[in-house]
Amino acid sequence: MNPRHPPLTEPVDPCGIHAVAWRDERLDLLDQRRLPADLRRVVCEDVDAVILSIRDMVVRGAPAIGVAAAYGAVLAARQRVAADGADWQTGFRLDLSRLREARPTAVNLAWAVERMLATAAATTADPDPVATLLAEARRIHAEDIAMNQAMATLGADLIDAPGSVITHCNAGALATGGLGTALGVIREARRRGLIDHVWVDETRPWLQGARLTAWELGREGIPVTVITDGAAAQLMRREAPTWAIVGADRVAANGDVVNKIGTYSLAVAARHHGVRFMVVAPSSTLDPATPSGDEVAIESRDPDEIWAAAGGAPPGATALNPAFDVTPAALVDALVTERGVAAPPSGSGIAALLAG
Amino acid sequence: MNPRHPPLTEPVDPCGIHAVAWRDERLDLLDQRRLPADLRRVVCEDVDAVILSIRDMVVRGAPAIGVAAAYGAVLAARQRVAADGADWQTGFRLDLSRLREARPTAVNLAWAVERMLATAAATTADPDPVATLLAEARRIHAEDIAMNQAMATLGADLIDAPGSVITHCNAGALATGGLGTALGVIREARRRGLIDHVWVDETRPWLQGARLTAWELGREGIPVTVITDGAAAQLMRREAPTWAIVGADRVAANGDVVNKIGTYSLAVAARHHGVRFMVVAPSSTLDPATPSGDEVAIESRDPDEIWAAAGGAPPGATALNPAFDVTPAALVDALVTERGVAAPPSGSGIAALLAG
Repeated sequence: MNPRHPPLTEPVDPCGIHAVAWRDERLDLLDQRRLPADLRRVVCEDVDAVILSIRDMVVRGAPAIGVAAAYGAVLAARQRVAADGADWQTGFRLDLSRLREARPTAVNLAWAVERMLATAAATTADPDPVATLLAEARRIHAEDIAMNQAMATLGADLIDAPGSVITHCNAGALATGGLGTALGVIREARRRGLIDHVWVDETRPWLQGARLTAWELGREGIPVTVITDGAAAQLMRREAPTWAIVGADRVAANGDVVNKIGTYSLAVAARHHGVRFMVVAPSSTLDPATPSGDEVAIESRDPDEIWAAAGGAPPGATALNPAFDVTPAALVDALVTERGVAAPPSGSGIAALLAG
Repeated sequence: MNPRHPPLTEPVDPCGIHAVAWRDERLDLLDQRRLPADLRRVVCEDVDAVILSIRDMVVRGAPAIGVAAAYGAVLAARQRVAADGADWQTGFRLDLSRLREARPTAVNLAWAVERMLATAAATTADPDPVATLLAEARRIHAEDIAMNQAMATLGADLIDAPGSVITHCNAGALATGGLGTALGVIREARRRGLIDHVWVDETRPWLQGARLTAWELGREGIPVTVITDGAAAQLMRREAPTWAIVGADRVAANGDVVNKIGTYSLAVAARHHGVRFMVVAPSSTLDPATPSGDEVAIESRDPDEIWAAAGGAPPGATALNPAFDVTPAALVDALVTERGVAAPPSGSGIAALLAG
């Protein structure tokens, strides 16, 4: 799909975290529900285990979910070939339909499933379709790593003065195959001496900021301080970060950004304080079929994810737990993809990135 | 101090929650660290127990802290009279100096301590200064209840159309002696048919919204839904609440509002979405000696209050845990006190409220 990034047979995570890895013919995931307390891994032997791992957020982050789904398709093909022989594709397509539905909001999941379906469809005369699909999954994985590096360079180029930055959730090595999207830019800008401190929202209810981003940057010696989500506005007023830098789960055709709940709040605060707002996402996150953020189905997760911290729901009270929100394109100063930058993002800018 | 509110000998909490009560010659507090899972009470026999209860947030909410401190002064006087006889006031003043420092940000604590010191200073010929101080503490308590009712009426008068409202933290019966400040307005507006739903931020790190406000409104059958702090902006965009209504821990002479961390973020989002922003606080919260919010010492609490939810701090990462933030007066549409409304708040408006 992207000839600028030739496939590697063994994709190498430059951060050494290996959120998603293919090992011993199985999909091996770092269990992100348990970090940082516990570095446990979950090994998926079949596609159902992959679906469960995506739904339960063993693996999370739109690009990482895409890579995991690609390997999940390999497992599905292997099962179906073993069970159904030459008729494997019918069951395979059913499996991939379920895989695509594991989480509804991120577009990279559907994108990876489509790509694996297209590869499968082209294997009619292939003596070893599973090997062909594995090569394609590795290609997706290797491309993700290469795209992270390309985005890191392009995003860091936008930072024109040293200072601190603020981020939300985890758009790092844990959310991708490589350097990360937002954290890839932060790593590269830090390397260039442009970042003296990283602030990160804890990101309720799942605490990806406090658990994952703090762990990921802390282990590399990048100064990182966690704040509660509600403290970000005050932080901007007092510390004047140069940029807010986040990832994305889907970018609509008009540039609206769907990302982890709280991103929109951060974008509103950033605009109020004159802090520039950067979204970093591979082109597989762009969704030209969705006109605007208003058309995106926002996943509602179990309210108990909120209540758990409070020790349960009091009688008579309810909770709403949307996993994502929509940041209108007008609040985004720059959208960074591996294909280039749209600053600010617009319908024509995004179309140009996709065409280029 | 306020002749419009004559003292009651036995102040009665109209909500029946009794966050702060004087029972059997001791201060009896509902332990707000354990709600809603556990309705445990903490009984304070001496002033040190009161200081600890304020610092550890057994009792919280600026007005409730003021009432608890007034009763704490009674306990201090009783101890000092028993130990030092006629020379009790020297030790008493030391005790009240420590009491005043239990938490630095809310001004009601200092206000109540000053009032009890002034009462003590006038007892030189008093045969029973402890009884006199108890009467003054009860007066402060009863005044708080009456002021809540007055604010509820004035605040509800500002709501001119039915709809939903959003609040933050807990400014309710648990934070005061009576109906609450923000929740007093919400209770009264609900009674008038002006509120169909209450949204509340969970309010990290202490979850006063999810634990206390949800419990307090849920038990009265007022429809209440908890959201994460980061979800408030999206909620405003989708649900268009008529007002955001919050309490305050201190209001500076220029109208800047110091309140629970996250209030400023909510105010920025409210302005962005055209949601009006109401601050409800008794006149004891007004601090004419502080020119603006920039001069207020913001309490920094233990970072472990943040890390506890994440299962501990990852190596290399730090956390910042400011308990309060400053909302500039320009983002506040109405400041409601028991003496009247400043809409919007300004230096002259606040001076007029204090003079009236």
